Amino acid sequence: MIDQTRVDVPLPKAYRLLNHGPVTLVSSAWREQRNVMAAAWVMPLDFDPPKVAVVIDKNTYTRELVEASGEFALNVPTRRLAQATHAAGSCSGREHDKFTELRLASFSGRAVAAPLLCECVGWLECRIIPEPALATRYDLFLAEVLAAWADPRVFREGRWNFCDENLRTLHHVAGGFFFATGEPVDA
Amino acid sequence: MIDQTRVDVPLPKAYRLLNHGPVTLVSSAWREQRNVMAAAWVMPLDFDPPKVAVVIDKNTYTRELVEASGEFALNVPTRRLAQATHAAGSCSGREHDKFTELRLASFSGRAVAAPLLCECVGWLECRIIPEPALATRYDLFLAEVLAAWADPRVFREGRWNFCDENLRTLHHVAGGFFFATGEPVDA
Repeated sequence: MIDQTRVDVPLPKAYRLLNHGPVTLVSSAWREQRNVMAAAWVMPLDFDPPKVAVVIDKNTYTRELVEASGEFALNVPTRRLAQATHAAGSCSGREHDKFTELRLASFSGRAVAAPLLCECVGWLECRIIPEPALATRYDLFLAEVLAAWADPRVFREGRWNFCDENLRTLHHVAGGFFFATGEPVDA
Repeated sequence: MIDQTRVDVPLPKAYRLLNHGPVTLVSSAWREQRNVMAAAWVMPLDFDPPKVAVVIDKNTYTRELVEASGEFALNVPTRRLAQATHAAGSCSGREHDKFTELRLASFSGRAVAAPLLCECVGWLECRIIPEPALATRYDLFLAEVLAAWADPRVFREGRWNFCDENLRTLHHVAGGFFFATGEPVDA
């Protein structure tokens, strides 16, 4: 476990970690198993208590672990993790441990067993809201955010501030092609 | 009506208009009424046929028009429209026509009655998939994308290419604070 500076994000501000539409890494754990996959199809669903919606394909190993445990964590990666994010979205963790393979260090959260990924800059620990018909029909999962964290170098007092180019979050278009989060625009 | 250059986006590529997490403008129409609101809580839900998920609060005028018509359009605004996007998300169209007030010109789509907004760079014409329990419980709407368009200056062959700073799409954090879509990162 690598120690990484992180601060609590008050739950009513947790949506701001996802509001700008970054790609996420979904981590999960069940008994001795763990996995991580990339997910761009994720969004906030409510402010307080904060909820999220995320699409998790029925063929993924993550789906098994999420359904078994009823939990997952959303990790917000940076530019530095672009390759690992692409790789985590392209291979399955059923055969190999992706954390080892992709050299992704992790630390323990407070609310869920899913490991939180080092080098990310935002973390949301989530518990599934049971809506089995949604999962079956649309691969869609709704969840309540139980705890949220951020790297204070880039997220403070509810605001992102990307002072370091390497710590910018990522927006996925398709096939390993991303955009970094760009310049602030204040309307 | 202002004529704007736009090209058809093949439906299996329509998700790419939203995959990077831009803020959207949701336009709607019902009989003589029309409206537009900002929505950041929107994401792709499926590839082909393309589907989307969007949160539309029950207190909004848009909600009334969307529920009455069963349709809406998602418009992807650019940096140039940051102020209008913020304003469209901050006031209600119940009393005043926001198109007039915010000087938003529009053109007709092919599949739905909702007007499409000029100066945007991506458009998805959507028909609601009836899931009334989701709307009631979570303000969540699922919809099938019936037609999609893009401005070929910035979106061609399924790829965004932001050659012009003013035509970059926007990512909303909170309270009128956005990020422009930034540099490409190819993993």
